[in-house]
Amino acid sequence: MIRIALDAMGGDHAPQAEVEGAVQALSDLPPGFLIQLVGRRTAIEAELARFPSVDRARIEIHDAPDVIRMDEKPLAAIRRKPHSSLAVGLGLQKAGKSDALVSAGNTGAVLVGATLLLGLHDGVERATVATLFPTSDQPVLVLDAGATVDCSPRELVGFAWLGTIYMQDVLGRSNPKIGLLNVGEEDEKGNAATKEAHALLRQASGLHYVGNIEGRDIVAGHHKYGMVDVVVADGFVGNIVLKFYESVARLIVRLVKKEAPTVLQMPEIQRIFKLLDYAEYGGAPLLGVKGVAVICHGSSTPNAFKNAIRVAGQAVTGNLSAHIAAHFARRDSESQA
Amino acid sequence: MIRIALDAMGGDHAPQAEVEGAVQALSDLPPGFLIQLVGRRTAIEAELARFPSVDRARIEIHDAPDVIRMDEKPLAAIRRKPHSSLAVGLGLQKAGKSDALVSAGNTGAVLVGATLLLGLHDGVERATVATLFPTSDQPVLVLDAGATVDCSPRELVGFAWLGTIYMQDVLGRSNPKIGLLNVGEEDEKGNAATKEAHALLRQASGLHYVGNIEGRDIVAGHHKYGMVDVVVADGFVGNIVLKFYESVARLIVRLVKKEAPTVLQMPEIQRIFKLLDYAEYGGAPLLGVKGVAVICHGSSTPNAFKNAIRVAGQAVTGNLSAHIAAHFARRDSESQA
Repeated sequence: MIRIALDAMGGDHAPQAEVEGAVQALSDLPPGFLIQLVGRRTAIEAELARFPSVDRARIEIHDAPDVIRMDEKPLAAIRRKPHSSLAVGLGLQKAGKSDALVSAGNTGAVLVGATLLLGLHDGVERATVATLFPTSDQPVLVLDAGATVDCSPRELVGFAWLGTIYMQDVLGRSNPKIGLLNVGEEDEKGNAATKEAHALLRQASGLHYVGNIEGRDIVAGHHKYGMVDVVVADGFVGNIVLKFYESVARLIVRLVKKEAPTVLQMPEIQRIFKLLDYAEYGGAPLLGVKGVAVICHGSSTPNAFKNAIRVAGQAVTGNLSAHIAAHFARRDSESQA
Repeated sequence: MIRIALDAMGGDHAPQAEVEGAVQALSDLPPGFLIQLVGRRTAIEAELARFPSVDRARIEIHDAPDVIRMDEKPLAAIRRKPHSSLAVGLGLQKAGKSDALVSAGNTGAVLVGATLLLGLHDGVERATVATLFPTSDQPVLVLDAGATVDCSPRELVGFAWLGTIYMQDVLGRSNPKIGLLNVGEEDEKGNAATKEAHALLRQASGLHYVGNIEGRDIVAGHHKYGMVDVVVADGFVGNIVLKFYESVARLIVRLVKKEAPTVLQMPEIQRIFKLLDYAEYGGAPLLGVKGVAVICHGSSTPNAFKNAIRVAGQAVTGNLSAHIAAHFARRDSESQA
């Protein structure tokens, strides 16, 4: 049995969107999956009552009276609220009673909570939030998407490894291509951290590092290397580019709606907007922690939760966490040898 | 007479696109404008021969036998090639024989060349490349777009002033709103440089600083402040976001072409793509130098050169350089008082 805990109180439309997403997920997932709704029992029960035909044998409710708000300081909130839905959900995983957590709550609190309660794998210096960017081809993983604003060169190399293992285990890409996000492709381009990270990545054996790539190469592909699978950046740049991308898609919808509203009704155009819709990609995994945690947008729809639960399930069945542990342990022992 | 020098050898399609752009610009500009084509005289004459009806009294050719290539190191190239089209064009302005330079050549060489040959205004610590981002509303100025990858907090504040004066003088915006590009709007968000810049910007009197803005707010507007006029960022982030934006527009064209090619023929949709087309906005001014320099994409079309020449002309007639000088001199004397 694979048990996915869902922080039912995290998002802007909690617990309604969360519960509805869980119900949708159960109808898609194989029978061996169970969803653990974590939050205020009465509120969750009230939402569940809207879905009388759902198989209650595949749903657990774990009562958690507290909620960590979006504007709370992550570390203080985690310490002060051990009975929050987030802390209880992570606690289940720590106690071996759950396999993964999905949350649309305070991102910083998920990061800090997972790092403190689950711990980092040996050799991992920083956990990182990884997001999939839609392209006209396969999606591209960009990390870090905002967990760490000032990253050391070694941390950036760690992200390259975490992204590689994730793309192999969860998206089934073999030998994923890595690019370092920079302002030019030449060796001497970039700020201090990217210059040193570029040199370290070029030496790293086992990584399929293609080199520096530019902003235009993320979704359009590089003129020599084509599309990369993983884009490494510090959390400052990654977060800004991620949020910018989301807004550009919305800008274009707004422009089309204004200038040519009938176009938005065309099935071909709806297919494009679906392709560019983050909700389809199912949340951002937090990589490097001992376990599985997937972070969703605060504004996630039921469909987004459904997809995030699927991604969390793939991380569990793909043995992502164990593979990360094994890789970093090997790397550690090699660097000490 | 207003004299705009055009580096005729800078772009990927030189001198053809440059000469054609100059011819187009002359038919739009008032009679008081003259264009100085700088580069290899015979190549320029050969291109000009294609336009027998152009008024040659409004075109000067300044012979420059050398060209600085895209892959040359800027500082070494400027020093080694005093007879390059770029150095000759800037030399005309320094000697008082020209009012502005437009170039699609090596961006680093334009930056270094203009800084060395024209000099910076007193009190300006760094020249900055400013680019206009299309939005569904008015365009937004983002600076720095790649001149300086690691910016000090004081330099970021300087960019806010340069952007303010540019938007007033050239785009006629009164009291332009400034946002600092960051990963969250709270005071404590960001890396070391943005945190300190945010504090300095809040104290700056005379600037219309609204606060930290996020990636999504650049083209979509901030939920409280609405659209800003100027976005301040270091050149690393600014350059990556700029190139990313260009590529997203191309990605969407590619997707539409694949899924619904007839849609691209609709005049309403063509209007949208024209709105999102950088070429319409006419190049990126280099702000802070004593004079006027406008940087174009290497791949600029004749239309892009025409618009860049227009922007350079507006900077001259708006007295941009003198206003920047006056502002920074006043700021300097106030900080010494």
